Amino acid sequence: MTAHRLSASDLHTVWDATLPPALRVESGDVVEFVTVDASGGGVARQVAAGTLACPEALRPDVLASARPAVTPTGGVPGHPLTGPVFIEGAQPGDTLEVELLDVRTAAWGWNACRPGGIGLLDDRVPGPYTHFWNLRDGAFTDFLGVARLPLAPFPGVIGVAPGAPGPHRTAPPRQVGGNLDVRQLTAGARLFLPVEVPGALLSVGDVHAAQGDGEVCSTGIETDGVVTARVHLHRAGTGRRLRTPELQATPEPTGLWRKGAYVTTGNEPTLLDAARTALGALLEHLEHEYGLTFVQAYVLASACVDLRISQLVDAPHFTVSAHLPLSIFDR
Amino acid sequence: MTAHRLSASDLHTVWDATLPPALRVESGDVVEFVTVDASGGGVARQVAAGTLACPEALRPDVLASARPAVTPTGGVPGHPLTGPVFIEGAQPGDTLEVELLDVRTAAWGWNACRPGGIGLLDDRVPGPYTHFWNLRDGAFTDFLGVARLPLAPFPGVIGVAPGAPGPHRTAPPRQVGGNLDVRQLTAGARLFLPVEVPGALLSVGDVHAAQGDGEVCSTGIETDGVVTARVHLHRAGTGRRLRTPELQATPEPTGLWRKGAYVTTGNEPTLLDAARTALGALLEHLEHEYGLTFVQAYVLASACVDLRISQLVDAPHFTVSAHLPLSIFDR
Repeated sequence: MTAHRLSASDLHTVWDATLPPALRVESGDVVEFVTVDASGGGVARQVAAGTLACPEALRPDVLASARPAVTPTGGVPGHPLTGPVFIEGAQPGDTLEVELLDVRTAAWGWNACRPGGIGLLDDRVPGPYTHFWNLRDGAFTDFLGVARLPLAPFPGVIGVAPGAPGPHRTAPPRQVGGNLDVRQLTAGARLFLPVEVPGALLSVGDVHAAQGDGEVCSTGIETDGVVTARVHLHRAGTGRRLRTPELQATPEPTGLWRKGAYVTTGNEPTLLDAARTALGALLEHLEHEYGLTFVQAYVLASACVDLRISQLVDAPHFTVSAHLPLSIFDR
Repeated sequence: MTAHRLSASDLHTVWDATLPPALRVESGDVVEFVTVDASGGGVARQVAAGTLACPEALRPDVLASARPAVTPTGGVPGHPLTGPVFIEGAQPGDTLEVELLDVRTAAWGWNACRPGGIGLLDDRVPGPYTHFWNLRDGAFTDFLGVARLPLAPFPGVIGVAPGAPGPHRTAPPRQVGGNLDVRQLTAGARLFLPVEVPGALLSVGDVHAAQGDGEVCSTGIETDGVVTARVHLHRAGTGRRLRTPELQATPEPTGLWRKGAYVTTGNEPTLLDAARTALGALLEHLEHEYGLTFVQAYVLASACVDLRISQLVDAPHFTVSAHLPLSIFDR
């Protein structure tokens, strides 16, 4: 077993089977991916430029994260991804197992929403809002003195190159992974990806310090990070041929849900509308019970509220429920 | 506080503000609802008639549940619901809190799927399949010697009458509740419903002994039951005016997820397609790893697999993940 390190200078912003590998490894090797936040350091640069305010206590850490803008690969902007890693011998039809050994964050993170954005209720956002989170503690982060969230960092983007000719944008997740935003991909999880190109071409990025199922405002707690993973190659024919990313998830820490949850439901003709109704009611609850503004409630929900599909068989209405963990209000 | 009991002779099959109350109670009173399974005893009648096979060990219990067919209210078939209960003083704009004190099941339950049904993957079902579950233990139930599921009974249908002129079918859940299939409505939960008609008109039915988020094959573990609940009336103006059902959920027992989960993901242009892809992969996993047939895997998944919305902001693809609790395979 060999250990490797990919620095934040090995970045690309598209998926493409023709990208030159930043590293070649054997099955069983460990790779440390130094990753850059989803804005490519842009939030830090805005603070440095004086166009975005940030809490004074975090300012030195934020400024230390300012870096030159990431050069878009082939002119196509996207998440800055660290890689790609070529796994020797990997062939289309194989399965690449990525064993997540460790996921670390920077000392701060951010999440944000804005009118006209891609979040679930961005149509109700009155103006741009960026929230800064202090991640120095490593275990918990405070939200406005109202709530305290446990950190559960994971890579928002992790995947291999699609077989179809590229470039492919990083925004949509695919059958080969990518921008999955599956919050259960924390240290200890094992991700299984279908290989579509020789060498697989694994890349990682967009660490979130915490996120709820749904990532409702379009950002988790976005941060620079370091993801350490061991790769294992499973040859075609040694198991099921995968068609979609699958994972073995570790038990979730029980602390977050120890006080139960406040849950709202949406019952609507589409799953998306049901999610909107459930989330809208939950944000009203957060505003009413905890004195938060709409955008404060919205970014908090993106960091810790889970959207579950309660039923999708009681036509003509689907039920989605939004689950707020009550333990976060223990002080 | 007064305790009341509604027997399984107080059944109706539609929501309608003009139904005569089966019972009138005061805020603070406790009501025991004796409920009938979603088939209105039909599965038991099929066994009694010899048109459906059932395990010999369960046969006496199943036959004891056979009952005359439920008369559809106004000729409109639906879930047999026990009620309605008129809460004195309840007015449109109020909130009715239903505190679930206890939920009990019969000694057996069933779930089923069939070609052309309403389940998520019914298009892949080769023929009708009914699975019988032994619920006598009260805490766990065995599945084909392969898995062991903890019971977590809840009413699949619980709601109040809509204000709009009826009758309304019971299948779709609504802003006043009904066929919510929210599996977190177990004993200890408190459900909050917006009142739309004088007296609220609360009805309960369709107990499930266990179910995963999603109820993918269209049935949980369906059973007769007894639901005991205390009602509390909150007058308009004493809190937020609700627009949709909300609940306070108790902490989930941690046992089911103590071994972590096997998780599949679907990344597709709609949430529904993403759910289909994730579930399809999970059923393949169950077939491959545990030697189940497609329909066996499907009904097991409906009883214990959770569908979560991992993200709904990474256009043009949504991510739904299907979570299989690994503890069920401990023997």
